[in-house]
Amino acid sequence: MTRHEVTYLPSGKTTRVPDGTSLFSAAHWIGLPIESSCGGRGTCGKCKVKIVGDAEVTDADHRELSPEELAEGWRLSCTLRVSADTVCDVPEVMSRPKAATMGLHRMVVLEPNVVRVPLTLSPSTVDDPRDDVERLREALHAEGYGLDARDLDTLRLVPQAVRDRSEVTAVLCGEHLVALEPAETPDERYGVAVDLGTTTVVATVMDLTTGMASGVASDLNKQARFGGDVISRIGHAMQGHAQLEELRHAALASVQGVIDEALADAELSREQVYEAVVVGNATMLHLLLGIDAKQIAMSPFAPAFREPLDLSAAQAGLHIHPRGRLTLLPALGAYVGADIVAGILATGLAREDGVRLFVDVGTNGEMAVNAGERTAATSAPAGPAFEGAQIHHGMRAADGAIEAVALGETVEVKVIGDVEPHGICGSGLIDAVAQLRLAGLVGVNGRMVSAEEAREAGSPLAEHLIELHGQRAFRLTGDLILTQRDVRELQVAKAAMVVGMRALMELLGVQPEDLEQIMLAGSFGTYINPESALAIGLVPPVPVERIVAAGNAAGEGAKMCLLSFRERLLAHDLPRRVEYLELSARPGFNDEFVAATVFPELPGEART
Amino acid sequence: MTRHEVTYLPSGKTTRVPDGTSLFSAAHWIGLPIESSCGGRGTCGKCKVKIVGDAEVTDADHRELSPEELAEGWRLSCTLRVSADTVCDVPEVMSRPKAATMGLHRMVVLEPNVVRVPLTLSPSTVDDPRDDVERLREALHAEGYGLDARDLDTLRLVPQAVRDRSEVTAVLCGEHLVALEPAETPDERYGVAVDLGTTTVVATVMDLTTGMASGVASDLNKQARFGGDVISRIGHAMQGHAQLEELRHAALASVQGVIDEALADAELSREQVYEAVVVGNATMLHLLLGIDAKQIAMSPFAPAFREPLDLSAAQAGLHIHPRGRLTLLPALGAYVGADIVAGILATGLAREDGVRLFVDVGTNGEMAVNAGERTAATSAPAGPAFEGAQIHHGMRAADGAIEAVALGETVEVKVIGDVEPHGICGSGLIDAVAQLRLAGLVGVNGRMVSAEEAREAGSPLAEHLIELHGQRAFRLTGDLILTQRDVRELQVAKAAMVVGMRALMELLGVQPEDLEQIMLAGSFGTYINPESALAIGLVPPVPVERIVAAGNAAGEGAKMCLLSFRERLLAHDLPRRVEYLELSARPGFNDEFVAATVFPELPGEART
Repeated sequence: MTRHEVTYLPSGKTTRVPDGTSLFSAAHWIGLPIESSCGGRGTCGKCKVKIVGDAEVTDADHRELSPEELAEGWRLSCTLRVSADTVCDVPEVMSRPKAATMGLHRMVVLEPNVVRVPLTLSPSTVDDPRDDVERLREALHAEGYGLDARDLDTLRLVPQAVRDRSEVTAVLCGEHLVALEPAETPDERYGVAVDLGTTTVVATVMDLTTGMASGVASDLNKQARFGGDVISRIGHAMQGHAQLEELRHAALASVQGVIDEALADAELSREQVYEAVVVGNATMLHLLLGIDAKQIAMSPFAPAFREPLDLSAAQAGLHIHPRGRLTLLPALGAYVGADIVAGILATGLAREDGVRLFVDVGTNGEMAVNAGERTAATSAPAGPAFEGAQIHHGMRAADGAIEAVALGETVEVKVIGDVEPHGICGSGLIDAVAQLRLAGLVGVNGRMVSAEEAREAGSPLAEHLIELHGQRAFRLTGDLILTQRDVRELQVAKAAMVVGMRALMELLGVQPEDLEQIMLAGSFGTYINPESALAIGLVPPVPVERIVAAGNAAGEGAKMCLLSFRERLLAHDLPRRVEYLELSARPGFNDEFVAATVFPELPGEART
Repeated sequence: MTRHEVTYLPSGKTTRVPDGTSLFSAAHWIGLPIESSCGGRGTCGKCKVKIVGDAEVTDADHRELSPEELAEGWRLSCTLRVSADTVCDVPEVMSRPKAATMGLHRMVVLEPNVVRVPLTLSPSTVDDPRDDVERLREALHAEGYGLDARDLDTLRLVPQAVRDRSEVTAVLCGEHLVALEPAETPDERYGVAVDLGTTTVVATVMDLTTGMASGVASDLNKQARFGGDVISRIGHAMQGHAQLEELRHAALASVQGVIDEALADAELSREQVYEAVVVGNATMLHLLLGIDAKQIAMSPFAPAFREPLDLSAAQAGLHIHPRGRLTLLPALGAYVGADIVAGILATGLAREDGVRLFVDVGTNGEMAVNAGERTAATSAPAGPAFEGAQIHHGMRAADGAIEAVALGETVEVKVIGDVEPHGICGSGLIDAVAQLRLAGLVGVNGRMVSAEEAREAGSPLAEHLIELHGQRAFRLTGDLILTQRDVRELQVAKAAMVVGMRALMELLGVQPEDLEQIMLAGSFGTYINPESALAIGLVPPVPVERIVAAGNAAGEGAKMCLLSFRERLLAHDLPRRVEYLELSARPGFNDEFVAATVFPELPGEART
């Protein structure tokens, strides 16, 4: 990946960016926002910078800048794509928009994609042959905004709205006209950020004028009846068009359901929501749009599309404002989707210099490492153990699930909800095995000791070790047990994760001790005990305080894109900026995988 | 309107074009086609010319040309918009595509907007992270074509089609993917040209590989039950959304009906039609798309849109290929619509040097004059007389209508169809009044003589002059009469036309004797007797052989745009090239109008 150095004067700040990055986004990557109101679309002309030396002139430059300005070296930073080392002078930013802290301590400037533009339309006269669309386009252009009026929705809206009055307020989502309202309409703008997970769907309605959440709701993905993981869902969709449509409708119903619930929570109507930003893994976004996803399940694992999309929500079947937009963030590959792009954005991983590891633990584990100016991401097929599936008493992280385990003289368990335990979820499983390791009841290779061996070693928990149908097991509480096979399942799951992390660290030349931070993302990540993660070797060995929970980073990233076009542009840059590693293409994968099933040795422990 | 001179070397041909015209189109205007396969979209790079002197570099130039080529002065002629006098070198055209004569003796090169592009897709591999859309886009770009894949239709089509085989044929309509077919599929491409008239709708299915018509059908516009003219239709649509929808559905049903009939005639299915080019007046195209047209009926007469449109036919409600496109030509103004743009194209009016007048006679009369490098167009509210409405025994030009009248010793009438006459249509009315003028039975001011006066003058037709309810009338045949009031109606109608023509001629400094040709367009124009048109002063006084029928010029223009992207680009240029005159804004309009009701004097006739 070719990179070029960009220097911004007068601050002298520099950055090295991949070939093709815009000067505008490159500045934002290093926290040096350049003025803009049009969202980097080349229509407001405010983002001009003065290039030291030569630079190409783009069509937008010709349109927005005078010949004198061009001769002096002024260019729009949003359309200038860096193709060599570049030095430019940046005018001082005059506006100070509102900002909010989001994601992992990220300051997000409140500049949503949805804007409200007050306009005074010049009246039609017989001497002025302009049509309604032109009059509106020119009025918007005078304010620095573009208008895409090539669709029937816009053509049908414009004449009715621009005739009744000369003072109107245009509501734009990017360059799409969502509404034309009377000038005196109060500035109320809402958007919704949706994280369409394979298991759980979360919607957050955001007030785009304040940056605050107005309502939130979550629910299980209604596709669950077609299978718990993406592979089984793709398998169902492969049976035919009707099945693909079933999955599409289930995804739509899930998204619509949480949006409607979040709206009810916020006491808002669908018509008040102008934009939905949806993130999810590549399979979820394919199925949401009714796009064949079967190649995601087959080598060489290429999705149908990875680009960001800007669609009519109504055409996609989603009910928000009738002319509202449905925006999807880009994906890096078949198994590192828009959710991870959003997560990388929310954690600032690719824009900060520290050496950091981002991990989203799940059936499909995704991880990304940043080191200096390079960032790389991959995914690993961990399998269902982390979701509690294929585990003897495994269950989802719901009421009744053991989510934490501590072993001392006795077994202590923490159960979700005020109910009796009736299973163990992923974080409980990690805790249990970690504690069994630390108690000397599971060996470095995953072998569970027998009750007899435990008694010989003087373990107070020896009577918890049982045999069931010829298999060893550990009784947690009541009838709930953890079997030898469960330990093996966890070993397999964590081994996949470990191979992925190691591959990324090797690619970027990162050693475990270099890692300044490990971020565990996703609702599951939040519940993993960092000490247990270290004990089973789910993460590289680092001081425990370097492990932090990143929360629902995907959802946070979606909200950030909703609130700030600058963040959205960064998200759009990520596929160019982040190296995507396909793990299955890696030579020696199987050997590495087998080696990685081993647990970290404890101090003084002999490898057996 | 600023114009610039363009000189093409080595031929040395020059032309003067309005500011902003592309070098590519400017060359085509003077019959000097520049090589291109992408349709002037800046993706094939074949249209490059070498500029003598400086020229701006566009984004497409940067993409398609090497830095060395740019330094040598090469630019894509399709993206270079002329903004100063320009000299350029044009490489010799190597390809010799098929051509056909269409419109009014126009040679049209067969290069349709719908193309079939055979592709070999590189197989997906784990080392190649490209998604399906990218692979297809890159394969198309290697062949010189762009791909717009931002819509759900395309995203849903691509993965299913590109996976099964590496050899595919992409069917593109512009940059929209219509179909992906097995490589061995025979090259069959059809399009349909539709002239959506206020009264009559005509569809012609064209074989895009041969340029020949495969089937044709016409029918009455099903909107007729909501009124005969555009004003009454707009009036109906103004009653509410449901009424606008009624008109939209009626227009759609009319267009679909003639398309289906033409397809049956051609023994083709809807799925074989990839593109529909529809022309019509601004009101018809607004209503076809369900766009509020009320401002067309009110001063200052501004339509909602005038730009050319490229829409999904299915989204607009038209059933051709499910991913086929609906293309609309641009309009000049509220009353000079895409039908006249098509007519100007078909007659070559704006690209030929001769001084010519184009007239489409109808309820709304449209006319355009070309003189040297200037072309101007306007419209005149002639009223319904030419359609046979408001005429005592008037009727449409259908079976039983008197379409021609000759007066000698007796009255001779020519009737449409092998039936008894039961009314008189527009061309019959013009003939009748012209003949009455020539027979001395109607004066220069339109006064019909009495039977007594006729007898005194020795007219053999004196007994045809009668009085009915105190009004003079002329008995044509049987009970069918032409009243004094009918003559007045015709005077009013022709006066409006005359004011329009005079205004254009005055604007361009054209005298009647300068006119080398007067083209009467439309099915009505075809039936007008040129001598009668001269006798009543419907056209300026020219030798009768200079008056020609231009046939259905609108439909011809639509067919030309279907068959040749070059003609389509010219049509898109016309709003920039043709000056639009709004007659109602003209000072002294009423005085001119009254003066124009007078008929031309006959040799030796005294003005009374």
